[in-house]
Amino acid sequence: MTNTQLTLVQIDNYGPWTVTPEPRREMDLQTLQSRLFADLAQFVGHRGGYAFFTRFDNMVAVTNGLDTDDHRLLQESTGNRYPVTVSLGIGVDPNPAVALERATEGLQGAGSAQDGDRREVLSGAPVAEPSDEDVSIAHFDVNDATEKYTDQLNEFDSFIQIEQGYAALMRYLREEYGGLSFFVGGDNIIAVTPDMAVADYRAAIDHVEEAVGVDLKVGVGRGEHAHEAGMAAKHALEECRHHGTAVELGWTAGEVESE
Amino acid sequence: MTNTQLTLVQIDNYGPWTVTPEPRREMDLQTLQSRLFADLAQFVGHRGGYAFFTRFDNMVAVTNGLDTDDHRLLQESTGNRYPVTVSLGIGVDPNPAVALERATEGLQGAGSAQDGDRREVLSGAPVAEPSDEDVSIAHFDVNDATEKYTDQLNEFDSFIQIEQGYAALMRYLREEYGGLSFFVGGDNIIAVTPDMAVADYRAAIDHVEEAVGVDLKVGVGRGEHAHEAGMAAKHALEECRHHGTAVELGWTAGEVESE
Amino acid sequence: MTNTQLTLVQIDNYGPWTVTPEPRREMDLQTLQSRLFADLAQFVGHRGGYAFFTRFDNMVAVTNGLDTDDHRLLQESTGNRYPVTVSLGIGVDPNPAVALERATEGLQGAGSAQDGDRREVLSGAPVAEPSDEDVSIAHFDVNDATEKYTDQLNEFDSFIQIEQGYAALMRYLREEYGGLSFFVGGDNIIAVTPDMAVADYRAAIDHVEEAVGVDLKVGVGRGEHAHEAGMAAKHALEECRHHGTAVELGWTAGEVESE
Amino acid sequence: MTNTQLTLVQIDNYGPWTVTPEPRREMDLQTLQSRLFADLAQFVGHRGGYAFFTRFDNMVAVTNGLDTDDHRLLQESTGNRYPVTVSLGIGVDPNPAVALERATEGLQGAGSAQDGDRREVLSGAPVAEPSDEDVSIAHFDVNDATEKYTDQLNEFDSFIQIEQGYAALMRYLREEYGGLSFFVGGDNIIAVTPDMAVADYRAAIDHVEEAVGVDLKVGVGRGEHAHEAGMAAKHALEECRHHGTAVELGWTAGEVESE
Repeated sequence: MTNTQLTLVQIDNYGPWTVTPEPRREMDLQTLQSRLFADLAQFVGHRGGYAFFTRFDNMVAVTNGLDTDDHRLLQESTGNRYPVTVSLGIGVDPNPAVALERATEGLQGAGSAQDGDRREVLSGAPVAEPSDEDVSIAHFDVNDATEKYTDQLNEFDSFIQIEQGYAALMRYLREEYGGLSFFVGGDNIIAVTPDMAVADYRAAIDHVEEAVGVDLKVGVGRGEHAHEAGMAAKHALEECRHHGTAVELGWTAGEVESE
Repeated sequence: MTNTQLTLVQIDNYGPWTVTPEPRREMDLQTLQSRLFADLAQFVGHRGGYAFFTRFDNMVAVTNGLDTDDHRLLQESTGNRYPVTVSLGIGVDPNPAVALERATEGLQGAGSAQDGDRREVLSGAPVAEPSDEDVSIAHFDVNDATEKYTDQLNEFDSFIQIEQGYAALMRYLREEYGGLSFFVGGDNIIAVTPDMAVADYRAAIDHVEEAVGVDLKVGVGRGEHAHEAGMAAKHALEECRHHGTAVELGWTAGEVESE
Repeated sequence: MTNTQLTLVQIDNYGPWTVTPEPRREMDLQTLQSRLFADLAQFVGHRGGYAFFTRFDNMVAVTNGLDTDDHRLLQESTGNRYPVTVSLGIGVDPNPAVALERATEGLQGAGSAQDGDRREVLSGAPVAEPSDEDVSIAHFDVNDATEKYTDQLNEFDSFIQIEQGYAALMRYLREEYGGLSFFVGGDNIIAVTPDMAVADYRAAIDHVEEAVGVDLKVGVGRGEHAHEAGMAAKHALEECRHHGTAVELGWTAGEVESE
Repeated sequence: MTNTQLTLVQIDNYGPWTVTPEPRREMDLQTLQSRLFADLAQFVGHRGGYAFFTRFDNMVAVTNGLDTDDHRLLQESTGNRYPVTVSLGIGVDPNPAVALERATEGLQGAGSAQDGDRREVLSGAPVAEPSDEDVSIAHFDVNDATEKYTDQLNEFDSFIQIEQGYAALMRYLREEYGGLSFFVGGDNIIAVTPDMAVADYRAAIDHVEEAVGVDLKVGVGRGEHAHEAGMAAKHALEECRHHGTAVELGWTAGEVESE
């Protein structure tokens, strides 16, 4: 059974800061946000976790394998190098949506995201007893995205297609299973999922195809940490490419789904 | 009348590179992508432009004020510092969607995005005769996003709300006007727009409210470059906050729209 | 005749900040410093200038081609993205040491580097009438550094050799000519020089060889900006490698010096 | 007794790369080098280590606490995000100079630094049995550097003073004790030292004062990792400031040296 540890990374009082004393240059804000995310991705990624930019002022990370000291170090190091600080809420649950609910409540309970006095909160506790099946990662991409979109449509219309596919998938997995999907660039979506069967993934792909006409495939992996699970998912996705299948589970060599 | 210069920044043959010789660590890819975007934002932003991460492997920039030499320099400097190279397509038109269509065609005409031999293409030409009304920027945000979402819902459910608002707006502005909208973090969406009236912006806001229940406001600015237009838009948005209005045009001090 | 424009970039009140409220993690400080320098190098470099890290809390840049607005933008953008701010002093003179003297005096006149109230000073004025011979760059490297040092000695002993060569050269060029030399990594030293003859460069090389036994060669370039001058210097240095010469001037195709 | 673990980080075949197919823009090289160092500082620093830029194409890190897998991860992640790769040599010895000798030999034995076929070597092995006294860090700074130099001299002449102090100290500690000193910006020098007594540090300070007239003080710390030892050294240096002493050992509260 999965036991997902999620961390909500929230920039403290960021909105007001961006317009104080008057609106700051947008490209400086974009630079700050994307570099802060890059540093988070490196920090979490080098410990086996995954980080997602989400809204940039609020980022979500799969942090199985990171303990409280790791979180404190991230917080201290960020505060030493950026003009902003971050609060961190940790939540754990078999269901990713519930885990994030807990992570979020920890910060909400300490005050508003725009409370000038609420800085560098650290709430929640990491997984108590790790197992090697704690994290499930599903890596989706769009079939023939380059041929059908990138090389055919103008970039914004390609992007609209990908966006619609993402919007449909993110709602479906959230509402049906409590899975959390994140767009990670190109035609790729990575979802942190609870225990789901091949039929569930197939249903999700069918839903997106019917709702918005975007054709997905998915590789799924499991592991103690997001990195292991994610690499298994990537390899499974390569199997999809190789076999022309829509769903591949990284841990079942024999279980190949034909499209 | 607007005369938007857009540049499509496309990482050459990126998809294949990410899985060669086998899938690379996802957090390294995320870091590479977001740092490349940050560098683009700095480069373009310091010359008065705006850059948007879009799909990261394909990014869109408003480059009024940047000439061909600037583009060549961006290309050379990126190639010197990253393991990947970029192709750049420039397009110009009063209508942003048409400008991007041209920018995209320049690259598509030179080969596929996944053609290993197509590297560092530079196509298209910048605005011939700049005027101080070439760029129109509309800066949207969500009313009371912190109170209604961030401080109430778990972060993913907040994100779903913002995403649905963005997905609805991006399609509407694209289809009705040829405006291109980009999510820039938090509850902010920046759109590159053609000439549009207050009633048009109001119609867009109404559409999003009706379609997905997300409540937007917008400040609009004009200028020779994106930065000027965008700063005027930010100040106009501050006026919205101050006056409780839904649409403010930066260049018409008297034209205040009541909500 | 050269007319060097130098900018002193000084982090405001940096020393006290590094130990407030208590000493900060050294690797965070190293990261902050080197990234701030990297951003400066990109900003200045993309406008034709050269930046040197010097002491990191005080950096020196050759800024011919950058006007006051460019400097103000650098200052604003840095303040938007870092937890520290910078003061900038501009100085111009045919002699680099005098130019830096003036640049430094502008900041010193405004208060101490560790005065908590002295923030974001911008002093001095850029070159009034640029010419295409304003900047002279001399690019030195060590003959056979890889064979003699890197592949033979332990890294620290290699470094000591390079350091001793640098220390000898920096003093000699400063005291004899007012030239300013900066170690730029590997076995490379870049000097901003006034008008100097081939014999002067040869004398400098001889001095270093006699003083500390380190064997240098140098390519020299001239241009309106540091980048042009520096690229000419790099090409001239390649000529040294090719012809086995000790001094090559980039602008005199015929004037080859035999070693 | 100390047991220092040092890692030599060497960019593979860097010199030739910088001039292929022709010399690359110097500011791009400076950016690449300083960002690579920043990433190394973050990676090593977040695991308790210290990294020094040294010559940038060759960097030295104190890596007690990092195992072989950490080194492999650093190597893989660097190769995924930069246009260059790195080789890593690990060496361990009570004496830092000997440890670096071993670290260097591991790479030299695998081929030249400019051998195009020698890529991503990983040699040597980490400390077998860690103890909490393995690392000794000495943090030096210059007495009244701001008042005597930064606020008085032009920046280059300030820099010459600091450089001369550094050059004298680096040779003395290397030759007399096998300690390795690194300039870390401002007026700060950090040395990785073997077991040394207060009188040894005092002798080093006296030597520098006599040789080049630069007046140093030093705080020394010990620990299992560089970070702990270095923080103790920083606090000891604060004690020097407080008490006007020249040498403070972090682990001997009573042993205050009067200046």
